[in-house]
Amino acid sequence: MRALRIWLVGTGTVGTWLAGVLGSQRERLAASYGLSATVVGAASARGGFVYDAGGLDLASLPAAAGGRAAAAGRRGGRWPSTIEGLRATEADLLVEVSASPAADGEPGLTHMREALQRQIPVVTSNKWPVALHGAELAALARSQGVAFRAESTVMSGTPVLSTLAEGLAGAVPVALRGLLNATANFILSQMADGRSYEDALAEAQRAGLAERDPAADVEGHDTVAKVMILSGLVFGRQLRREQIACRGITAVTGQETAEAAAAGGRIRHVATLGFTGPGGAGSVTARVQPEFTGPGDPLVNVNGTTNAVVFEADPVGQVTITGPGAGPQLAGQGVLSDIIAVASRRAAGS
Amino acid sequence: MRALRIWLVGTGTVGTWLAGVLGSQRERLAASYGLSATVVGAASARGGFVYDAGGLDLASLPAAAGGRAAAAGRRGGRWPSTIEGLRATEADLLVEVSASPAADGEPGLTHMREALQRQIPVVTSNKWPVALHGAELAALARSQGVAFRAESTVMSGTPVLSTLAEGLAGAVPVALRGLLNATANFILSQMADGRSYEDALAEAQRAGLAERDPAADVEGHDTVAKVMILSGLVFGRQLRREQIACRGITAVTGQETAEAAAAGGRIRHVATLGFTGPGGAGSVTARVQPEFTGPGDPLVNVNGTTNAVVFEADPVGQVTITGPGAGPQLAGQGVLSDIIAVASRRAAGS
Repeated sequence: MRALRIWLVGTGTVGTWLAGVLGSQRERLAASYGLSATVVGAASARGGFVYDAGGLDLASLPAAAGGRAAAAGRRGGRWPSTIEGLRATEADLLVEVSASPAADGEPGLTHMREALQRQIPVVTSNKWPVALHGAELAALARSQGVAFRAESTVMSGTPVLSTLAEGLAGAVPVALRGLLNATANFILSQMADGRSYEDALAEAQRAGLAERDPAADVEGHDTVAKVMILSGLVFGRQLRREQIACRGITAVTGQETAEAAAAGGRIRHVATLGFTGPGGAGSVTARVQPEFTGPGDPLVNVNGTTNAVVFEADPVGQVTITGPGAGPQLAGQGVLSDIIAVASRRAAGS
Repeated sequence: MRALRIWLVGTGTVGTWLAGVLGSQRERLAASYGLSATVVGAASARGGFVYDAGGLDLASLPAAAGGRAAAAGRRGGRWPSTIEGLRATEADLLVEVSASPAADGEPGLTHMREALQRQIPVVTSNKWPVALHGAELAALARSQGVAFRAESTVMSGTPVLSTLAEGLAGAVPVALRGLLNATANFILSQMADGRSYEDALAEAQRAGLAERDPAADVEGHDTVAKVMILSGLVFGRQLRREQIACRGITAVTGQETAEAAAAGGRIRHVATLGFTGPGGAGSVTARVQPEFTGPGDPLVNVNGTTNAVVFEADPVGQVTITGPGAGPQLAGQGVLSDIIAVASRRAAGS
């Protein structure tokens, strides 16, 4: 089969890792998964969009997209903006791994709509477009008969969305609780060991855990985005930010964490999502807040940068998925699993 | 799209539950997953195989297959053995939910080979054919371009195989540890609370937890089968039974479980699987035995009939999946998720 032609939008840490793996592990990916992929287009915020129908050089992708090297030129070219480049060119898959802001999810949202409207599947790690418009994008993909996948947006490389939506397909989702932010869980875990909030935050920053804006982690905005993504893609119901009651961990005191530990439990930053009716028909419970988790709670022993989701479905009962919640190569792994799923679906259709 | 025509082989608890759900939840499954399925053939060990190209009555399936009711007759008929019926008729999917013995996995194995050789996908909960020949069946399916899925054979309705093989696709599997038998974990959990082995076993039997032959659970044969399935379908390497060192829980004493509890841990019946080389190239570690799991071990707090798998892969690290390990409607749920995956793959190919 012809190689999967990829538009790679975003050449930061995730895009760079991915380009590296698609190049260096080409043989293993072909042998194990029948995956043969070529990056034909690449974009970055600064350098516009480069395209080569014969395939871009994976090793120099960030540089090429950054504008410091010329495109190969054969059936290719360069456009000042990504959307112009996408509109002018062809591919079999959009891999959107840029980071669009919480305000409107743009320009990532427009990139994804452009692809889906042309029946081109989308794989993305770009959180906010999915948080704000996940249900719409999934419905558009379904109506166009193509895949829309965003595995890495929740718990990074730990498979949560595919496990809940596909592995548990057929079961009726009831509710979920989760620890969805690695930095917040790291800080609360340190505090359980006796550190102050300030010391724990400083330690998280030294370890390179905090995202660009630490407020996104400690005030809960990142977790809110993940709740919105889970709601849209697993429960099929789009939430607005203001529908999710959110309290961060900045006001958690050493006394509270010590008292929780003395009671055999932990203070955790817990995201909760539930619907009263199947398929999201009834009223919504969606909140993010520090909560006491006692002995026996599946979330009580999830420490450090590990994250977890406890999913309740009928007739399954409680399924818990625990794994690392952050890291560029982990996000890249989540994107890679999605690309393999798209390639496998394409093979089934050939 | 034309409804998915199913051969349903096995009309015990799993097959009956499944036939019920495909009938009673037809509208929800169509709306949520685009699944439209018709059971055209049904078989049981006693009653042979009945077929109706127009669809059998789902409500009376067990009776029909049991030979106590006549097939509808239109473009249909009855055959004394399942394999004769399969050979004489047509379908889009074989759902093999009978239970074949550990000795040779027959006749389930022959049913699955018959379907795959004719490019008909297979979904199964029939453990031993997959344990003994999983790698071969998966390779045959791949070469024929159709799906072979066995989600419910490991941890029942809790999605493990799809999560490890698809959700983590692209990652290099390194090793796994698991608690894979609900009965054994229930007994050891009871013993940790101070009961004797005999009392705990009797309690498990009263609760209807033990399989037909309780030895399969407490001596570890059931867990060995699951290790073989994981090895074949996740690591791509077929193990023979004798390659797995197995010690059951029958010799675990109250003193051992008490000492483990005093040390803050638990005795668990742990399955371990690891390969020294990627893709199963190197030497194999495969064993099933009672082991001390200490504080901090992801398996230490998995109690009662709950099961768990800790999967180690590169670059992901450790991912743990915890959920219910047994129950007929849970196995049915695992089969249903596989049927939905096949239907979705078929839709992509249309």
